[in-house]
Amino acid sequence: MDGKMKTAVMLGIGKMGFEEREIPVPKENEVLVKLEYVGICGSDLHYYETGAIGDYVVEPPFVLGHEPGGTVVEVGKGVKHLKVGDRVALEPGKTCGHCEFCRTGRYNLCPDVVFFATPPVDGVFQEYVAHEADLCFKLPDNVSTLEGALIEPLAVGFHAAIQGDAHLGQKAVVMGAGCIGLVSMMALKARGVSEVYVVDLMEKRLAKAMELGATGVINGGTEDVEARIRELTKGSGADLVIETAGSEATARQAVHIAKKGSTIVLVGYSKSGDMNLPTSMILDKEITLKSVFRYRHIYPMAIDAVASGKVNLKGIVTDIFDLDDVQEAMDQSVSRKADIVKAVIRINGN
Amino acid sequence: MDGKMKTAVMLGIGKMGFEEREIPVPKENEVLVKLEYVGICGSDLHYYETGAIGDYVVEPPFVLGHEPGGTVVEVGKGVKHLKVGDRVALEPGKTCGHCEFCRTGRYNLCPDVVFFATPPVDGVFQEYVAHEADLCFKLPDNVSTLEGALIEPLAVGFHAAIQGDAHLGQKAVVMGAGCIGLVSMMALKARGVSEVYVVDLMEKRLAKAMELGATGVINGGTEDVEARIRELTKGSGADLVIETAGSEATARQAVHIAKKGSTIVLVGYSKSGDMNLPTSMILDKEITLKSVFRYRHIYPMAIDAVASGKVNLKGIVTDIFDLDDVQEAMDQSVSRKADIVKAVIRINGN
Amino acid sequence: MDGKMKTAVMLGIGKMGFEEREIPVPKENEVLVKLEYVGICGSDLHYYETGAIGDYVVEPPFVLGHEPGGTVVEVGKGVKHLKVGDRVALEPGKTCGHCEFCRTGRYNLCPDVVFFATPPVDGVFQEYVAHEADLCFKLPDNVSTLEGALIEPLAVGFHAAIQGDAHLGQKAVVMGAGCIGLVSMMALKARGVSEVYVVDLMEKRLAKAMELGATGVINGGTEDVEARIRELTKGSGADLVIETAGSEATARQAVHIAKKGSTIVLVGYSKSGDMNLPTSMILDKEITLKSVFRYRHIYPMAIDAVASGKVNLKGIVTDIFDLDDVQEAMDQSVSRKADIVKAVIRINGN
Amino acid sequence: MDGKMKTAVMLGIGKMGFEEREIPVPKENEVLVKLEYVGICGSDLHYYETGAIGDYVVEPPFVLGHEPGGTVVEVGKGVKHLKVGDRVALEPGKTCGHCEFCRTGRYNLCPDVVFFATPPVDGVFQEYVAHEADLCFKLPDNVSTLEGALIEPLAVGFHAAIQGDAHLGQKAVVMGAGCIGLVSMMALKARGVSEVYVVDLMEKRLAKAMELGATGVINGGTEDVEARIRELTKGSGADLVIETAGSEATARQAVHIAKKGSTIVLVGYSKSGDMNLPTSMILDKEITLKSVFRYRHIYPMAIDAVASGKVNLKGIVTDIFDLDDVQEAMDQSVSRKADIVKAVIRINGN
Repeated sequence: MDGKMKTAVMLGIGKMGFEEREIPVPKENEVLVKLEYVGICGSDLHYYETGAIGDYVVEPPFVLGHEPGGTVVEVGKGVKHLKVGDRVALEPGKTCGHCEFCRTGRYNLCPDVVFFATPPVDGVFQEYVAHEADLCFKLPDNVSTLEGALIEPLAVGFHAAIQGDAHLGQKAVVMGAGCIGLVSMMALKARGVSEVYVVDLMEKRLAKAMELGATGVINGGTEDVEARIRELTKGSGADLVIETAGSEATARQAVHIAKKGSTIVLVGYSKSGDMNLPTSMILDKEITLKSVFRYRHIYPMAIDAVASGKVNLKGIVTDIFDLDDVQEAMDQSVSRKADIVKAVIRINGN
Repeated sequence: MDGKMKTAVMLGIGKMGFEEREIPVPKENEVLVKLEYVGICGSDLHYYETGAIGDYVVEPPFVLGHEPGGTVVEVGKGVKHLKVGDRVALEPGKTCGHCEFCRTGRYNLCPDVVFFATPPVDGVFQEYVAHEADLCFKLPDNVSTLEGALIEPLAVGFHAAIQGDAHLGQKAVVMGAGCIGLVSMMALKARGVSEVYVVDLMEKRLAKAMELGATGVINGGTEDVEARIRELTKGSGADLVIETAGSEATARQAVHIAKKGSTIVLVGYSKSGDMNLPTSMILDKEITLKSVFRYRHIYPMAIDAVASGKVNLKGIVTDIFDLDDVQEAMDQSVSRKADIVKAVIRINGN
Repeated sequence: MDGKMKTAVMLGIGKMGFEEREIPVPKENEVLVKLEYVGICGSDLHYYETGAIGDYVVEPPFVLGHEPGGTVVEVGKGVKHLKVGDRVALEPGKTCGHCEFCRTGRYNLCPDVVFFATPPVDGVFQEYVAHEADLCFKLPDNVSTLEGALIEPLAVGFHAAIQGDAHLGQKAVVMGAGCIGLVSMMALKARGVSEVYVVDLMEKRLAKAMELGATGVINGGTEDVEARIRELTKGSGADLVIETAGSEATARQAVHIAKKGSTIVLVGYSKSGDMNLPTSMILDKEITLKSVFRYRHIYPMAIDAVASGKVNLKGIVTDIFDLDDVQEAMDQSVSRKADIVKAVIRINGN
Repeated sequence: MDGKMKTAVMLGIGKMGFEEREIPVPKENEVLVKLEYVGICGSDLHYYETGAIGDYVVEPPFVLGHEPGGTVVEVGKGVKHLKVGDRVALEPGKTCGHCEFCRTGRYNLCPDVVFFATPPVDGVFQEYVAHEADLCFKLPDNVSTLEGALIEPLAVGFHAAIQGDAHLGQKAVVMGAGCIGLVSMMALKARGVSEVYVVDLMEKRLAKAMELGATGVINGGTEDVEARIRELTKGSGADLVIETAGSEATARQAVHIAKKGSTIVLVGYSKSGDMNLPTSMILDKEITLKSVFRYRHIYPMAIDAVASGKVNLKGIVTDIFDLDDVQEAMDQSVSRKADIVKAVIRINGN
């Protein structure tokens, strides 16, 4: 497909703009995807607000966005499982396939990963992308490309649920009702966890959690979280806690509400990079702390979970912006953080 | 066995004394054991120096000591697997057998455990004890009662090794070369771990680690631990880190030296009860933190490991005191902490 | 509670009768339960038809039945978690609590288990039973005692699902649509397995499977099972197979339809005690075979699954007989095997 | 490296010959290895005697041999971890890197594997081979290329030990004292298993097992294996059984001697492809059957185990033949099966 495409670029901190770029040509084992929806992730906002995450520093013009869904419009040589017209969710990280981590199936730890919107690799707030075909997962008829875009955050939720070995019979607590907290809650439910309680400070988010299937919610600002969990678990504590809020306070609370011998999954990053944790209580309870870095082997299962109705993925979207309004989209996502659970960029106006 | 026995009691902070008590009578499913050696544990010293550990407060007169080895001198009704004359190691915690934790095989988490030398339950710095026969493990001929006493700390090391799934092919690091660090190192080696490096600040302890089989040692005071581990692991980091030093500094170092996707086992308690940990690095490396509370199902295996020569358990003992010298034993253990790796009380002068 | 109770007894092969027996008195830590429903299990029928299972030989008069549900009418000393009026499901096996298997949480392997209706231990086709309170699990308001009785077979299904590590994202096959096949299918679904196909020879059972939630069914008599599974799994085979039919033919088929690296769970006993299996194919596919002996730690979770509507347990019942009609119940269960998926004895006519 | 090399070829059933072939040129990411030793495997003999294994049919001239060790003599483009002069063990199977199995770290199940000496892919009874550099593992100074050749069968032993989760404290039994039985026994010991008993019919092999470190041996022809294991395990049975003999009799015996709740690892292929197993006993004991297809991720660990002296790999070699004597080597390996535990072809007369 010859021609140009519209590309939204970050020009500097707090400043978006547009460029016209060449529509890429799919190489062997790649497909060209016409993008339809791309989610806005917290990391996009972090780059937008501060210009960097740790050692990853934005060099403008830089393309944000790593949660894409779209339709295959061209198929490179050697691609067998996709054809023009297939709607797909795109897993954003290409890995080397050769390192110890790739070979042992933990490709999310590959040191040579090339990941959308992680400097210096551009993201996908743009009309087209050429991507490794093996990383493009066909959506069934009843899953939209909007949902396809949201498979990416859902994958984090499922990886958290799997790291925590979430299963039927447990009582679980999710700290935080932002996008990742909500997808974690839905992932737990989809894996059969009977009771999932969600803790947040904002009523609006808690209402969203209830709407999306939480067993119950607790307002950490107005309620005594420990007392409530004690009551809900008949004194024994939670079998599994997923910490997505990224605050020391909630991580400490996770330890306090966790049952002896249970597992806490750390998902949220703290601002400082550190957290002061009650390690003696961790020892006394013989708690296991698992952690989550992106995800692996999740896309097919996550798509199935959406297709079968186990996860109401569309339900997390609170705001949709057109690509032309990307500046507005980013600014509102920053300024209305409490309101916007999940914003998505609509690329092609459908 | 009628009569009286000598019992060493803690009379107050820093003050030991003696009492004459009745020799206990073994009930059904109990045996009476004439004690020969009882190890002095860090927790004994902590009670001795401060009068409490957390909520556990010593009410004098209180008997310390929970690492006993001895010989069966009387057998209660219903006991089948032991007879008079059997030399035994005594597991110090009696559990309820009915709670969720006991029923699922994690009896170390039983909330109703009765554990020697944990207030208000007396310990065993005394001549005899009646104990549940199922918790008395017969020693083979080539394992002494001195070694029998030391099975208790070794069990902590093995539980740490098991929590970390230590196995052949790994490169492991043990932070701390005190008693628990050394038994952890030996437990790792016994489970087949090829390379075990030990980190400590004291040369004397590091020399002990080498003597007992460490692959190498690193002086954290004079060497760059991270650089050394990087070099020893060809840049990839340790597959497994056992943190026994109980300091925030070493726990943070554990995160820095751990390989991506690896496991850190927390064993050492920090003084404040908290540790400020680099949680973002934990997430980026997708590290698992396991923890250790006492041990479970270890005694038979640990005794086998000593009997088969896989673990040089006697080698950790640096000082032996007679029961009559218990005040001296406790005082020296406190004052010569750097020198005394492991002190043991000899009960009956053999 | 003084007095006599009606007890159905097996008087010989194919012959039931009644005896009046003393209503038992609950000992310490026991409760007396007025039984309301007791399921008829395949093992009850096997004893009824042949007088023995392996080394277990019926000595008449013998009481069959080990799937009871009822209401607590008297509470023994020391019982805290139950009171008169509580409706309960009774786990039928009392274990020793002391052996290696009990201590490591695998109490279903306890060699000293005392299990209802396993000679010489009587079962519960009778009006009352005194039973260990820890084995009586309180039913929530929306779970009936009929469902309570059926928790026992459901527990087998859940144990099979757990042995196979059933989870979201898998495509599973259950061989056999008898009672155990159906509860296994429902257990897989409750644990989140997306697609569960059921294979049987009888259309009526397959229709039942569909009614209770199977994703699809295959008639092994008229369809090519391997071809169908190949098609349903896009050539890769099933991620998990639960073999409940107990025939060599279905066990072999399980190996043929299983994906490389997958797990087959053996649940059904074959008549001869042996099965000729394609072990070279097992090796080539590196298949794991797990097996199931009763269950452990399942009741609370299974009751939750019923209460939350994840499992339509009532739906498996095809026939209910009054205790007075026990002869008829047993005879029909034998003669109408193809028709009767699950028969239950109603004890007290409510 | 220009020129020709000597290649031993199978010309037909029972008939070896030689061809002169071009020395291969290493492609990108490949190295050229001058071979020094290549082991003779049971599968080589099976092809030699019958012309086929299952669907794999030899089309002469065909090169046998898949257990090679040698020295790097040329390095292809892009190879970083090897240089000319490095001595290496060669893992014989090149996998696709893209299929589900490769991506999840179970590359031994890759359907597109290209494996030495598996028709139509030639093996390495020849002077040189060009091979994927990532599959060539550098040997430390104290590991010879003879041992390098034997890493391949040792890898099977380690994979069996890992599939069985072999660990310190277990009592294990290995059925069969052929090459795979012996390396399995040594793998178990290296992973810390305290007691490993080996069962075979031939005294010579049992003597070899003792020489190489077995705790004890049992002659299945003259001793009552079940009674002996019962005695050695104090009645409880083996914690782990590795079945390498490939006979129905030993596989059945494995079930009889296995402890309740234990694991049997199937390694040996039966002649007929089937085995009639006591499945009811498997169920009653709730035994897990694991199986082994080749191995994965073993080479570095296996080389370490040899280097550190944990495994006496050289000790399994009973016969060494020069490449010129390959006909003799194959014929004797067939005719003296009972005598020859492991024969190796020496390629370059050093």
